[in-house]
Amino acid sequence: VDVGVVGLGLIGGSIALNLAQDFTVGGFDTNKEARTRALEIGAITYAAPNLRSLADAKIVFLATPPSGVIPTLRELGDILRPEAVVTDCSGSKTELIAAIERESPKLLNQFVGGHPMAGRESGGIENASAELFQGAAWILTPGASTDIRAIDMVVGMIPTFGAHPVIMTPEEHDEAVALVSHLPHVLAGTLVQMALGLRYPEVAGGSWRDLTRVAGADPQLWTEVVMSNRTHVARAILELNSRLEELQEAIESGNRAKITRFFEASKAAKKREVDI
Amino acid sequence: VDVGVVGLGLIGGSIALNLAQDFTVGGFDTNKEARTRALEIGAITYAAPNLRSLADAKIVFLATPPSGVIPTLRELGDILRPEAVVTDCSGSKTELIAAIERESPKLLNQFVGGHPMAGRESGGIENASAELFQGAAWILTPGASTDIRAIDMVVGMIPTFGAHPVIMTPEEHDEAVALVSHLPHVLAGTLVQMALGLRYPEVAGGSWRDLTRVAGADPQLWTEVVMSNRTHVARAILELNSRLEELQEAIESGNRAKITRFFEASKAAKKREVDI
Repeated sequence: VDVGVVGLGLIGGSIALNLAQDFTVGGFDTNKEARTRALEIGAITYAAPNLRSLADAKIVFLATPPSGVIPTLRELGDILRPEAVVTDCSGSKTELIAAIERESPKLLNQFVGGHPMAGRESGGIENASAELFQGAAWILTPGASTDIRAIDMVVGMIPTFGAHPVIMTPEEHDEAVALVSHLPHVLAGTLVQMALGLRYPEVAGGSWRDLTRVAGADPQLWTEVVMSNRTHVARAILELNSRLEELQEAIESGNRAKITRFFEASKAAKKREVDI
Repeated sequence: VDVGVVGLGLIGGSIALNLAQDFTVGGFDTNKEARTRALEIGAITYAAPNLRSLADAKIVFLATPPSGVIPTLRELGDILRPEAVVTDCSGSKTELIAAIERESPKLLNQFVGGHPMAGRESGGIENASAELFQGAAWILTPGASTDIRAIDMVVGMIPTFGAHPVIMTPEEHDEAVALVSHLPHVLAGTLVQMALGLRYPEVAGGSWRDLTRVAGADPQLWTEVVMSNRTHVARAILELNSRLEELQEAIESGNRAKITRFFEASKAAKKREVDI
């Protein structure tokens, strides 16, 4: 096989669907049904019975749940050729790099951390789509020891998915996703739980539905995501709370000027974001 | 005229567009251009030069900014016939009822508080649409002295807009919208302001865009909205903060079981909401 994909869920399945048009793709998943289904929909050209069957791959995409990344990397370290490249799709990077340094140091120069900023509420290969990454940022977080050749190879493949690569350090990545992805999930969950106390939850309009869309995400997966980036998530919640506390005091005391300044600053910040 | 619409912006314009198919609609706005535009797009059949021209209306819809509601009601109290019905579209109700009791008590039995749960980021008559209220809840908050006949009349008109009436007390309304509408605006604004510190804001995915969509809302309007419901908004922020604080401690200390319970409770609450 040219390419290996490990973990054939929503993300891995969607990656494979894009690659199978140009490459021979070997796909592995601990769930045999997912492998069969991936073969049926043409996402993979070969259903690998184990990781060892991917030994000759030039590049391997890891799309397992967060807890599967390190064990898979450990195994791949003994299997892959030294010139092969490995990239992943997990949502936090600082702890991951530390774990590779500790557990499979010889993979360090072959490994390029990756994180496509795309997803859906419902996971699984049955929701995979070649369009999933269209227009999305695909973060890459090479470490200090990563080969330039490995970085180039992954960067060169991102346009295949309709996405664009954004390169940053593992720390910058973890800080950014704590704010733009992990905190929104925490907030969505907190809000729907608050709404349980309402007598008339059906009054909610569009902004509420938008805000709470991701509250139904998989609890096991999101526990892992938050646990693996807990320093940054905890810090983001602290900062949010301190800002909310200040605004809460302004509202409670009827400080109209301060409330207006808050909404003006919000509008300006939103405009800057849209302009990017 | 059969119907009067006061305030020809996004909401008033959209109300008028629905009514003009079946009724003669007199529209008033302090901005003459908005009146002309409403006439041009067929939202109103008559551009009223002042409130007095709406004297023979059987029902008047108020869709002014929040600060215009009380002054308009005071004036209408002296103009309208005693059997006429008045309803509004403003986002908070407890203070409004108190103000009517104080300033135009004779309107109390003719007034039915209203609040269509629909909107758009961009206001103004140029964004008005007959489809705006399609499928939305239209909250009605009759007071203790409101005539049954007045309630029936407003309830009977809501289906014209493609919406469905939901009747509750002014207090229940204010508590509910503080959570499902006002708090989301506060959060969206706080988050985009936090994101100003990021070096790579372009990494944001779908959940971030959903969450911050309403951050660009009009600062003056939202200052008025929050000021007019500040007790409930302040209380909602306090409750959010206390829940976030608890979760923050669990995340910081790595309490995996508690984090999982949080996401499980979120998923269950979201499911309940979707099932409604």
